[in-house]
Amino acid sequence: MAPAPPPPPSASATAAPTDVVARPAAGRDLTALFDPTSVAVVGASDDPAKYGHAISAQVLRAPHRRPVHLVNRRGGTVLGRTAATSLAAVGEPVDLVVISVPGAGFEAAVDDALACGARALVAITAGFAETGAAGLARQRAVTDRVRDAGAVLVGPNCLGIMDSTTELYLASDTFDPGGIALLSQSGNLALELKLRLAPHGAGFSRFVSLGNQADVTLVDLLDDCARHDGTSAIAVYAEDFGDGRAFAEVAAAAGKPVVLLTAGRGAASARSARSHTGALTTSADVVAAACRDAGVHLVSTVRELTVVLAALGTRHRTAGRRTAVFTDGGGHGAVAADAAEAAGLDVPELGPGAQARLRTVLWEQSAVGNPVDLAGMGEQDPRSYAAAVGALLASDDVDSVLMTGYFGGYAASGDGLGGGGTALSEGEARAAQDIAREYVTRSKPLVVQSMYPDSPSCRILAQGGVPVFGATEDAARALAALTVTGPAGRAGSVGVPPLPEPATPLTDPGYHCVRELLTAAGVRFPVAYDISGEDELLAAAARFDGPYVLKALHLLHKSDAGGVALRLPDRAALLAAYRDMHARLGAPAYSVEAMADLSDGVELIVGVNRDPRFGPVAMVGLGGILTETLRDVAFSLAPVPAPRAERLLRGLRTAGLLAGVRGRPAVDVTAAAEAVARITAVAAAHPEIAELEVNPLLVRPGGALALDARAVLA
Amino acid sequence: MAPAPPPPPSASATAAPTDVVARPAAGRDLTALFDPTSVAVVGASDDPAKYGHAISAQVLRAPHRRPVHLVNRRGGTVLGRTAATSLAAVGEPVDLVVISVPGAGFEAAVDDALACGARALVAITAGFAETGAAGLARQRAVTDRVRDAGAVLVGPNCLGIMDSTTELYLASDTFDPGGIALLSQSGNLALELKLRLAPHGAGFSRFVSLGNQADVTLVDLLDDCARHDGTSAIAVYAEDFGDGRAFAEVAAAAGKPVVLLTAGRGAASARSARSHTGALTTSADVVAAACRDAGVHLVSTVRELTVVLAALGTRHRTAGRRTAVFTDGGGHGAVAADAAEAAGLDVPELGPGAQARLRTVLWEQSAVGNPVDLAGMGEQDPRSYAAAVGALLASDDVDSVLMTGYFGGYAASGDGLGGGGTALSEGEARAAQDIAREYVTRSKPLVVQSMYPDSPSCRILAQGGVPVFGATEDAARALAALTVTGPAGRAGSVGVPPLPEPATPLTDPGYHCVRELLTAAGVRFPVAYDISGEDELLAAAARFDGPYVLKALHLLHKSDAGGVALRLPDRAALLAAYRDMHARLGAPAYSVEAMADLSDGVELIVGVNRDPRFGPVAMVGLGGILTETLRDVAFSLAPVPAPRAERLLRGLRTAGLLAGVRGRPAVDVTAAAEAVARITAVAAAHPEIAELEVNPLLVRPGGALALDARAVLA
Repeated sequence: MAPAPPPPPSASATAAPTDVVARPAAGRDLTALFDPTSVAVVGASDDPAKYGHAISAQVLRAPHRRPVHLVNRRGGTVLGRTAATSLAAVGEPVDLVVISVPGAGFEAAVDDALACGARALVAITAGFAETGAAGLARQRAVTDRVRDAGAVLVGPNCLGIMDSTTELYLASDTFDPGGIALLSQSGNLALELKLRLAPHGAGFSRFVSLGNQADVTLVDLLDDCARHDGTSAIAVYAEDFGDGRAFAEVAAAAGKPVVLLTAGRGAASARSARSHTGALTTSADVVAAACRDAGVHLVSTVRELTVVLAALGTRHRTAGRRTAVFTDGGGHGAVAADAAEAAGLDVPELGPGAQARLRTVLWEQSAVGNPVDLAGMGEQDPRSYAAAVGALLASDDVDSVLMTGYFGGYAASGDGLGGGGTALSEGEARAAQDIAREYVTRSKPLVVQSMYPDSPSCRILAQGGVPVFGATEDAARALAALTVTGPAGRAGSVGVPPLPEPATPLTDPGYHCVRELLTAAGVRFPVAYDISGEDELLAAAARFDGPYVLKALHLLHKSDAGGVALRLPDRAALLAAYRDMHARLGAPAYSVEAMADLSDGVELIVGVNRDPRFGPVAMVGLGGILTETLRDVAFSLAPVPAPRAERLLRGLRTAGLLAGVRGRPAVDVTAAAEAVARITAVAAAHPEIAELEVNPLLVRPGGALALDARAVLA
Repeated sequence: MAPAPPPPPSASATAAPTDVVARPAAGRDLTALFDPTSVAVVGASDDPAKYGHAISAQVLRAPHRRPVHLVNRRGGTVLGRTAATSLAAVGEPVDLVVISVPGAGFEAAVDDALACGARALVAITAGFAETGAAGLARQRAVTDRVRDAGAVLVGPNCLGIMDSTTELYLASDTFDPGGIALLSQSGNLALELKLRLAPHGAGFSRFVSLGNQADVTLVDLLDDCARHDGTSAIAVYAEDFGDGRAFAEVAAAAGKPVVLLTAGRGAASARSARSHTGALTTSADVVAAACRDAGVHLVSTVRELTVVLAALGTRHRTAGRRTAVFTDGGGHGAVAADAAEAAGLDVPELGPGAQARLRTVLWEQSAVGNPVDLAGMGEQDPRSYAAAVGALLASDDVDSVLMTGYFGGYAASGDGLGGGGTALSEGEARAAQDIAREYVTRSKPLVVQSMYPDSPSCRILAQGGVPVFGATEDAARALAALTVTGPAGRAGSVGVPPLPEPATPLTDPGYHCVRELLTAAGVRFPVAYDISGEDELLAAAARFDGPYVLKALHLLHKSDAGGVALRLPDRAALLAAYRDMHARLGAPAYSVEAMADLSDGVELIVGVNRDPRFGPVAMVGLGGILTETLRDVAFSLAPVPAPRAERLLRGLRTAGLLAGVRGRPAVDVTAAAEAVARITAVAAAHPEIAELEVNPLLVRPGGALALDARAVLA
């Protein structure tokens, strides 16, 4: 691998925040970016310490593919080629221009490029939005000029781009060709991914350093890579998603795996994102919910990104979580079984039929329950490896196989041991071939952990398409990535719900207006009357029997301020509560309501927050006194269809309460889910509502009832 | 590294369960095992496919250290040496005998060894307890003979032992010398650990393959290694702990780090442990609690074991969780900050003083909040690396430093780039030296993640004692391992509580007897009277005012069966409840009790289970309707002193309830902890009680009250 020159100073910091402007319509034409008819590098240099040198060296790797022009204002030669002193001096139109000049000359270089007919620009130059307001204004002005000219711009403050399918090399690093498109806000993380993927034989179709996303955004690139035939999987490192909703929508529709590494989930890196790049860091819950909805694989480290990409580059997927652990050493089997379960898989005991079939190929001391353990048979008869793997891949009792342990070790040490070693080594190599053949002919994922992942036998497995890892937890994570339910081998996508047309805006966020809005959408509330004064209070109470609830109506959080009185058995108690409350709070208006029967119900909380990136995001969870303490909540992009709401509710840690515990009846989760669907639909149709909350939503065996509601306008 | 021959057939399976017999007193003399005056290998072989060949080759690595005798019943030569045809034919006493013969000849070999005066035996031969009852009986008989002769035996069904400090090589594999003693129930996992530790420069003082632990147990070996000067850390892979309580006691007193890899925490591997080795797998909660109490580092995979051992081999420890993340790339910094927080560390923003000091050594565009980001300064001035690390190690704002990113990359590619590259490479090497110097002179842990962990610069760091890892999550895990509060750099040991002398056994586990036992120990209960019939009922009720509680006394789980009536306001209601309950249940006796005020209290559950390995183990958690659903419980070896009980309670997920939420008062956690101490002390003093439970323990602002109790006799 050629040594990479140091990146320019600003590049080791991550990029500035997206300059949030209206996103051009989906499906921008990026042909000139990824397959230009000609290329020029402005700022080309013969000085190896300059970034313009590294880019020039890269672009010259494919001189036959398209005309390449190197531009240096002082002329001279660059890498043995005569450099033009300006783009104008090139004397012919240039389709794509890379600009790697000091900041002072940037605007002039852009103008020159547009004058030469450039349809695409890649701006390495830094010093724009990432430096503050003045830089942002300068960036916006340049972006406007580029857009007015009908061109596209990647950057500024980026490290370049690469497309191996069109032999376009405009980044400082060499990437092995392959099927992965990498869109990254960090150059160093991209480099680490490249290093880590190499042993897996995986390479790159494209690399784009996102930079400040002044014009071409992550979403534009994701969309283009989704339509790119040479790309089989898309890897993203982003701290700033730009239009997060669009990111999720495009990812959900991509038809190929999208794997996202992001940071800033903890308090520290959220602060870091603000202070380093000024990015509005999206909360972890929102990103996780959007990824789950969109079927995006979400990872936390470059190593995990590597493992998931290596896994997804293989042949088989499964929707089932039952895995067979197969080992040549009990310790490895036990550790791998734990790791598989920690990764969310099941390791069920095999049924009698499967065990009997294994017995026909294994010896007596082998264990066939699951984990399946050769127990020494491997070194006596290496064919037992493939026989057992084949039997497991053919078994209806499991959906996938995790092979773990010493395999690879017999050949790893060469033939130094003499006869026995050689025979074992040869037997192991044949076993690897047989395992790879079994894998290809079956339809189940197989993942291998070996103490010797670089051994000849493991290379045979890898060449046969079987992913091999050195660490047990990596193999388990890989298998989990292959265990998917969604389309196109993605992580169980349920799709991103379309946003409804905006409804007539809510102008008064008062309690009764919010209640009416939700009631009109079909959410059920108890009987309630707005009152002011004792006469209206008594008139309202005369219309229905107690017990009553009295609420003061000028408070967003009524109960915390003593503005709610519950279980008032009769009108006398209601009047007494009113007098007390009015003396304390002096609210202009109150609500008199029927008290619901809480004895056999569960209180939920249902809320929708409008995220600046991802739009309306729904939260459902356990309500009542434990809401804050347990934080037992689940998130999904809103609006949430009822079936998905039911899955969210049944996935809560305290879901057992809904099903009934200790003799309590099961409650009507279907009704609760329907209420969630209606509440979240209202929020989604009202962009003026920053926050809409029903708390509690009382769910009883016979239905769901909203007992209180509030809204915050944006 | 020399290629290892395949292990013998049984060795790739893990060992059989400990034959649980009374453990000899602590501090067994294992001198003859680890530093024998002479050694014989019975079953030595010239056939490289035989295990006796590999052992012979190993033992001959130190022929100068002590007399070595090779024994093969057919004589001939082994590795160029004349083999004796029997131990008797050796003609002189032999201190340690390794037995690697087919099973049929095992007992005779043991007898021969004892007749030759052997004080220690290492039994490779398999086919004993791991094969079933007959094998177990045979194993017991041999063990008795060994013990009667005053000798010690490792195995059978083991892979051998090694002590690099005495040049004793009696295992098939070569281990680099170092400070780690490895006690393992799996040969393959030991081999994987060896491979993984090599790049960290870590080696082994001892290796013992535990085998069936017929005589010398894990606890004996742990105890000996704790006293072994050449051992600085002890690594254990065990599925079967034997006497788990003793394991915890010895580990807690070891005075050096103990790191435990175990398996069988999930359902699958627990079943595996039974079917593979017949081991009684100890539940995950119990093992985790014992490890926490004993200060044992608990890990899940060989990779994690490697990371923790590599970390613990370094100089500094800290009790504080505040870490500074220092990076040369914003992406790496953000990802590492998340990883640090996921590992349980804090990444706090640095104070103004620390930021100001960093500003004096970094540029303007560097970020100094935390993560600290060079932002390109590293390649301009490599000295900035050491300057920043030095400033952070000197800062009072953090307890440790995690450096992450590209460092190592400038030198990793050699000098191929020409002048700029060379200068950077040299600058980086000097920076590494400076960082290592800073590290040595300061007192804080420093851990490095590098994309180029094998680079010359990272090797300089490692030689200076700074642990270097390639993966971010490994660096974070390492730092967490160095963040300890207990003695001797162990994981926050609180010590293993001694078991009290057994008290007079409880013979009647009836409700009132259990209540009396606990009351005598100082646990508070409400007023209660045992009654039978309506006359006694009314007489009891006359002694105190309602509301009353009525319980039927013949049921272990009274409330599930409708045998508890609460909140009976007066005697009439009590009588009605009695008549109803008696008609339904016809219990022979009932308890009439004062109803406690539940309105401002929190219900806890406090239980003690007697584990077959670890003795009495206490559980505390949230009681009431959510107990099973939330499973919000914590475990500790019993008896639990009150301060530790309070820490357990305050560590519950729902601990917020104890502190008061939503306007509820804080409850008396000190009183609850005192009750836990008393309850667990009772259970610990009553080995005949298999299970003792107080549920609920009502904790109110003014104290703690046990509202119900039950016991199950063993």
